[in-house]
Amino acid sequence: MASMDRRELLKLSSAVSLAAMVSSAAGASQKPVGNEHDNVPIWEVFEATFPGPSTGNPFVDAQFTAALSLGGRTVHVDGFYDGRGSYKFRFMPDAVGTWSYVTTSNMPEISGKSGSFHCVAALPGSHGPVQVRNTRHFAYADGTPFFPFGTTCYAWIHQSQEIQQQTLESLRTGPFNKIRMCIFPKSYQYNHNEPALYPFDRDASGKSDFTRPNPAFFAHVEQRISDLRALGIEADLIVFHPYDRWGYATMSAEDDDRYLRYVLARLSAFRNIWWSLANEWDLMRAKSAQDFDRFFHIVEQRDPVGHLRSVHYSHTMYDYSRPWVTHASLQTYAFESVPTWHAAWNKPICFDEIQYEGNLNSRWGNISGLEMMRRFWLGVVAGCYVTHGETYLDPEAALDENTTPTIWWSHGGRLHGTSPVRIAFLRNIVEKSAAAQGTDAKRTGFGAQTPAYYPNANTVDASGRGTQEILYFLDFHQPLYYDFPLPEGTYTAELIDPWEMKVKALPGTFSGKSKIKLSGTPYQAVRFRRT
Amino acid sequence: MASMDRRELLKLSSAVSLAAMVSSAAGASQKPVGNEHDNVPIWEVFEATFPGPSTGNPFVDAQFTAALSLGGRTVHVDGFYDGRGSYKFRFMPDAVGTWSYVTTSNMPEISGKSGSFHCVAALPGSHGPVQVRNTRHFAYADGTPFFPFGTTCYAWIHQSQEIQQQTLESLRTGPFNKIRMCIFPKSYQYNHNEPALYPFDRDASGKSDFTRPNPAFFAHVEQRISDLRALGIEADLIVFHPYDRWGYATMSAEDDDRYLRYVLARLSAFRNIWWSLANEWDLMRAKSAQDFDRFFHIVEQRDPVGHLRSVHYSHTMYDYSRPWVTHASLQTYAFESVPTWHAAWNKPICFDEIQYEGNLNSRWGNISGLEMMRRFWLGVVAGCYVTHGETYLDPEAALDENTTPTIWWSHGGRLHGTSPVRIAFLRNIVEKSAAAQGTDAKRTGFGAQTPAYYPNANTVDASGRGTQEILYFLDFHQPLYYDFPLPEGTYTAELIDPWEMKVKALPGTFSGKSKIKLSGTPYQAVRFRRT
Repeated sequence: MASMDRRELLKLSSAVSLAAMVSSAAGASQKPVGNEHDNVPIWEVFEATFPGPSTGNPFVDAQFTAALSLGGRTVHVDGFYDGRGSYKFRFMPDAVGTWSYVTTSNMPEISGKSGSFHCVAALPGSHGPVQVRNTRHFAYADGTPFFPFGTTCYAWIHQSQEIQQQTLESLRTGPFNKIRMCIFPKSYQYNHNEPALYPFDRDASGKSDFTRPNPAFFAHVEQRISDLRALGIEADLIVFHPYDRWGYATMSAEDDDRYLRYVLARLSAFRNIWWSLANEWDLMRAKSAQDFDRFFHIVEQRDPVGHLRSVHYSHTMYDYSRPWVTHASLQTYAFESVPTWHAAWNKPICFDEIQYEGNLNSRWGNISGLEMMRRFWLGVVAGCYVTHGETYLDPEAALDENTTPTIWWSHGGRLHGTSPVRIAFLRNIVEKSAAAQGTDAKRTGFGAQTPAYYPNANTVDASGRGTQEILYFLDFHQPLYYDFPLPEGTYTAELIDPWEMKVKALPGTFSGKSKIKLSGTPYQAVRFRRT
Repeated sequence: MASMDRRELLKLSSAVSLAAMVSSAAGASQKPVGNEHDNVPIWEVFEATFPGPSTGNPFVDAQFTAALSLGGRTVHVDGFYDGRGSYKFRFMPDAVGTWSYVTTSNMPEISGKSGSFHCVAALPGSHGPVQVRNTRHFAYADGTPFFPFGTTCYAWIHQSQEIQQQTLESLRTGPFNKIRMCIFPKSYQYNHNEPALYPFDRDASGKSDFTRPNPAFFAHVEQRISDLRALGIEADLIVFHPYDRWGYATMSAEDDDRYLRYVLARLSAFRNIWWSLANEWDLMRAKSAQDFDRFFHIVEQRDPVGHLRSVHYSHTMYDYSRPWVTHASLQTYAFESVPTWHAAWNKPICFDEIQYEGNLNSRWGNISGLEMMRRFWLGVVAGCYVTHGETYLDPEAALDENTTPTIWWSHGGRLHGTSPVRIAFLRNIVEKSAAAQGTDAKRTGFGAQTPAYYPNANTVDASGRGTQEILYFLDFHQPLYYDFPLPEGTYTAELIDPWEMKVKALPGTFSGKSKIKLSGTPYQAVRFRRT
């Protein structure tokens, strides 16, 4: 690691202190670059820093790239200007060995610089970036299945330090392994505070200079991404969004593209990011679908890691069948449509906004914890991936949308709902399934494996081994018994109460059409596992 | 009343003994017909009986009609053969005055018979047959609004006398004013008993002669229709259905049409019937949509009262836009589609099968009482009409579909669910609304009056008086407060808890955008009434 000192290197042996590493990487580096004795674990960030000119506007004027080679392979990455005469490039090595690099620039001071580093084995708990696997599902680069259980805190990195620390603590003890979060600050109902840092330089009147990104702002973003990485949480980074009073939603195409390239140069080397090009792209009146086509192409060309790419909508879907979209990011709870959309797109589908558990005065922000739990289960058996959100207003708070209370959905802080502990229960069930344990496992929803008929079932097939596990969720139905039509094989059965979070194993084994007596109450589940 | 004796005439003064009247009318009449001293209340049944030949097959051979006249108006009705040499016609007078009649037949013994009767004022509690009113809603012939709160007991008239009496008692004390019921007996899961009476003559081997209806069977049907009439309940009569092992679902077109004409001749004079030409017409493999077109035309031509006409489906809708369909009869719980369907058909919409509260092992037969209650409220605010059903299996019963337990959905008997008392609470609210009290009231669902947006609201406008009442149902949403956008006027407000069945009046009055603090729990309602 180019910029780490001895003390920090020692920390690398502990997975829980990963945060420290990128905190350092993102800070001002004083150490010479290209130290060939540095050992960088695979999927961590290698960073090299070079002094150069600070005259003019290097954010616009400087062209700075690096070519990194291992054996016969060469990867090109964009560098970036980090202010105060400091130029950097970052790289996430994806193969063990000695990588060499050489820089190219229109500025002689930072061109033709070369060096090398050793890429060594992964840190404990590190599995690499998440990718699409088995067409409609996800896995880390090392093949470990990744089953997203996301949450949403759009503007958490723009709140007070105290709230940010509360958020991290809530995430540490919570059930989530993905978080949707904006790069830009947010201006919306219940969101009226100013951020501590702005993404661009501002003059005394508050006017932004979109040609001059603020390195301190981005260092803060990087700190939080590395904090999440230390917690094993994917940052589903929202690059543009419409909730704006500072002008970030209405920049020119040239400014948009330069900002996006800057983001890509700084952040692509973090393994735990996904690109969400917008939240509610269709509410951005100043942009068209063609603008987002262009953004996708820029990301395709300038993210050497190939992180997951999608965009989220309010009413009008972006065309998720396009080849540059890796997965769908939906605002809906129409789980019955998953088979149709799977067939149309043949990609993973994330239900990234299924309304929020809470008590706001908006339809999207006041479903019950039971309903949130129900939607997570429906997503699991439908073979898609569901994202949580919470919007509880303190009953004693002023009932005024012009205030800025702390609401998880946007600010982070503490969780108040009844669904997170049930989501943890469900995640535990899913991650202990054959699908989550075997790299050859394949998940299929009711659309793929079974007809979209009652009860909704998620069948887990392990390639070459037949059906390993079947998870039924009975939704609001409350049958007294059901004749479960088991496929070939012998199975154990468990009755699962998703709300009470209880699992009761039934005696004996089951095969063929199996009549099982149930509780006769709603929201129950049954799991069969092959013996 | 042609066939009533003195004792029975006395009973007419009491609405609760209406049942006795038709019981008599449907029995064998020995009294001379055309007694001009008879007084028949409007909307009751006038019946005239004539002796005639019993040789051959009069069900097929006899042509027998009557022309009834009042002033310059003449109404033609079909008579029918009631067995044992007895020919009858029935007529429901819809205007007060002295009606005269004359018969026509291809049999000289019953042709050219004439007589008259006096039609007098309605019995207490009688409002006439239900008709379409205000395009998408219903009212009785006297203008009293009719808001259907239906239930379903498909084969209740084919169970033991004890169960039939239990059913009548359950209906007497229950919340329902309409019942979906089959004419033919039913053969289906949990429905394996033989009926006490068959609709057609059978030989020793059990083979039916579809050319010979069984008068005793139809007299029993008429007894039950009159029992329902005495309770103020509309009989939504299902003429054909697919759940059959006797051959009634696969008769020839000629037999179908003759049966239908016989049903029309016998039953049209009962004011409390609706024609449902089939349950799940599309599951009747031997019939096509064209067959049902033909059935509709026969009903149009041979029902002089013009009772409501529809047909119910399983997967494939009949085209409810056709002019001979008076209202839609749906199997769905897609309440969000009501605005679209209202726009397409411009008719009343009955959600006649929204699944059943119960615990069966079929998706359609095991929703909770809460979910059933919820669907009734969604129907009310959507501006359509919802039909209840219940399928509870005794937890101690044999879990075997080949048995014949007593389940309300099919057999009647007793109600076990938690929804009926909540449906009664809702019906009470609705019937006390301006819509139910004023003949000029108009109901509009959220599709017509307000956008299909949260909260779902049912706005009641009384013609010329502006909005009188607005009923909001918040479904699974649990806002802590809501800014209700009231139309012009001043309103009182009440918080309604549909599950706890409590109404709490808020102090003061409200106008314009009104912020009201709510419970923050799911399934709440709010009612505004103009002061």
